[in-house]
Amino acid sequence: MPLIVQKYGGTSVGTPERILNVAQQILDSQKAGNRVVAVVSAMAGVTNQLIELADQVSRGNQPTNREMDVLLSTGEQTTIALCSMAINAMGGKAISLTGAQAGIATDREHTKARISNITPDEVHRLLDDEHIVIIAGFQGKSPEGRITTLGRGGSDLTAIAMAAAIKADLCQILTDVDGVYTCDPRVVLDARKIDEIAYDEMLEMASSGSKVMQSRSVEFAKKFGVRFEVRSSLNNNPGTIVTEEHPNMEAVVVRGVSIEREQAKVTIENVPDSPGVAARIFQAVSDAGVIIDMIVQNVSKTGKTDISFTLHRSDLTKAEETLNPLVEELGNSVFIETTKGIGKLCVVGIGMRSHSGIAAQMFSALADNGINIQMISTSEIKTAVTIDESQLDKAANVVHTAFNLSSES
Amino acid sequence: MPLIVQKYGGTSVGTPERILNVAQQILDSQKAGNRVVAVVSAMAGVTNQLIELADQVSRGNQPTNREMDVLLSTGEQTTIALCSMAINAMGGKAISLTGAQAGIATDREHTKARISNITPDEVHRLLDDEHIVIIAGFQGKSPEGRITTLGRGGSDLTAIAMAAAIKADLCQILTDVDGVYTCDPRVVLDARKIDEIAYDEMLEMASSGSKVMQSRSVEFAKKFGVRFEVRSSLNNNPGTIVTEEHPNMEAVVVRGVSIEREQAKVTIENVPDSPGVAARIFQAVSDAGVIIDMIVQNVSKTGKTDISFTLHRSDLTKAEETLNPLVEELGNSVFIETTKGIGKLCVVGIGMRSHSGIAAQMFSALADNGINIQMISTSEIKTAVTIDESQLDKAANVVHTAFNLSSES
Repeated sequence: MPLIVQKYGGTSVGTPERILNVAQQILDSQKAGNRVVAVVSAMAGVTNQLIELADQVSRGNQPTNREMDVLLSTGEQTTIALCSMAINAMGGKAISLTGAQAGIATDREHTKARISNITPDEVHRLLDDEHIVIIAGFQGKSPEGRITTLGRGGSDLTAIAMAAAIKADLCQILTDVDGVYTCDPRVVLDARKIDEIAYDEMLEMASSGSKVMQSRSVEFAKKFGVRFEVRSSLNNNPGTIVTEEHPNMEAVVVRGVSIEREQAKVTIENVPDSPGVAARIFQAVSDAGVIIDMIVQNVSKTGKTDISFTLHRSDLTKAEETLNPLVEELGNSVFIETTKGIGKLCVVGIGMRSHSGIAAQMFSALADNGINIQMISTSEIKTAVTIDESQLDKAANVVHTAFNLSSES
Repeated sequence: MPLIVQKYGGTSVGTPERILNVAQQILDSQKAGNRVVAVVSAMAGVTNQLIELADQVSRGNQPTNREMDVLLSTGEQTTIALCSMAINAMGGKAISLTGAQAGIATDREHTKARISNITPDEVHRLLDDEHIVIIAGFQGKSPEGRITTLGRGGSDLTAIAMAAAIKADLCQILTDVDGVYTCDPRVVLDARKIDEIAYDEMLEMASSGSKVMQSRSVEFAKKFGVRFEVRSSLNNNPGTIVTEEHPNMEAVVVRGVSIEREQAKVTIENVPDSPGVAARIFQAVSDAGVIIDMIVQNVSKTGKTDISFTLHRSDLTKAEETLNPLVEELGNSVFIETTKGIGKLCVVGIGMRSHSGIAAQMFSALADNGINIQMISTSEIKTAVTIDESQLDKAANVVHTAFNLSSES
């Protein structure tokens, strides 16, 4: 009998009513002839309420990560009990397990622990006993038996790691979208749901704005070869299968277009082109906790160079404050220039490896429509540009059309 | 350095503000030179919210006890994290433990588990490392590692059992009253706080209406010789010490007066006085889940007898429905009579063992004030009567005065 792991996010289990819907879906999956393990998140809003309580008792101090994990893990624990009760009330046979009970061992990095190992003996035992097993996402236990949480996207990670550990036939990530689209359908009206996408493509889409899933879960799935499906919990439509790449996939040169808004750019001009300077700059930015995205350095002219990078607009002030003393140290002629109102556009596809001219085709399409390109960055399967944010939606449509993404592949 | 266990109930930790007060009290206890373990309950109201959620997803079905425990235990888990955070925010060093992490092993009776064993290694380790240890009350784990809860009064039980396991020098039950009183101070205005009371007296007081604590916690304390103090979390007044009896205690003949309202009485008249009939009656009532209190049977006249018992008014209908078929079976002359509006009054004191005439003194006091006694039941250290509920407050004052309970012992 096929074994499937389903993951339901916080919105899907956000109210008692929705929990009953989820229970029905799980029972339907079982009736369709599957053994089912469901991983669930905290009810939408609960985590924020708990953080609010933590703030109130901490009086301006940062709570310890260890206690934060004890607190936040109650969110998923509540959901597993309620989901099991709902299934049992409908005549099913469900049992809940916390992360620790499900055998999810992690390191000691509270609030952002990594799964080190899964011992799914109890899960197997319950499945053999014909139970539906409901597992708390986002949590595990440290070697000392402390409660840990996995950080953002942790419930997806739990589902994928559990699917790997119990050798599930399929892992379904149930969410509030129908799958992965060729572009954000709110921007490109004829965007199409992708039937199948390679892990690497999914990773590039995720890291450039298509936030269906966190990159780490996709990376984990890739590492352990877990085939998974992103699909809607609100209807019964097939979703997008994320899987290992196979030769047929290369026929499609561009899989999708992703966009990212609210970006900003920092350019440091006239940087001495000597070893170690770039390292100092990016170390300082990283130490300040600023996450940067694209980095571009032009060729050196007369021993000086310009270094640019992009980052989220909300981090701009912090980055400037961090870099100002460093820039002063580098000499009089060095200065910082910052620009807000930047958007990022990427085309992604493993077919790009074996096809040339994709970048040229993309740049032409943008140029033909009067859209000026500011920065360019490429990887083997991705071409990214930054443009003026006000032109981002138009650019997405233009590029989507240029690669004919709205027709069936 | 003395080791104390403190227990804070749901009202004491009912808001973030109150949690900060509790944190301050715990820190004060530590500064006063103690090592401190604190057992905390769920924030007031949280347990009811969780039960409400369970009802909503169970659609009229009874949730399984196992899942109920997974759900309810999140209440205390939230409090331990918040208390630890509050202490840490004030510069203390606290760590939280769930019941399972604190080594509290129970049987498998979900929602009303019994503690089978405590392995407090982790508690000792943390204490040795100069931590304040915050333990979730009301919960433990079954032999299979499932989450269990201890039922009503469970947090008191956790505190007392933990105090026994770690050989604490004192266990403090912090609550919203100042201690145990010679009578309910809302009824008897000159009721006095008792400085010291024997376990057996506390048990008799608890089982006859003075609901400061559940009997099971007191029984546990008696069994393991845990000396504990009931005191207020709202002020710094000394409370009532509950301890093993010692000869000095017998000097006080009556320790206190307890009252219980909303009682009802069932009398079955003309019951055949043959072996097994009483057993059948009380087995039937017990099977129906009705909790009965006093039982009185008068001497048999002509092979027939009357059996009376008291119970809470809210259980009266259920008891009648249960007994009607049985009474019919017993013969035509047997019939049931029920009375509502009954109150119960007890005087309790281990000194009664060595003093005669207490019952007579009590009955005289009531008679002198025109209060008619309906039923009488006595034990070695208690004399209980039922009277008309409307006379209960007057009776309590009369008896309290008769035994001179308002003066210092």
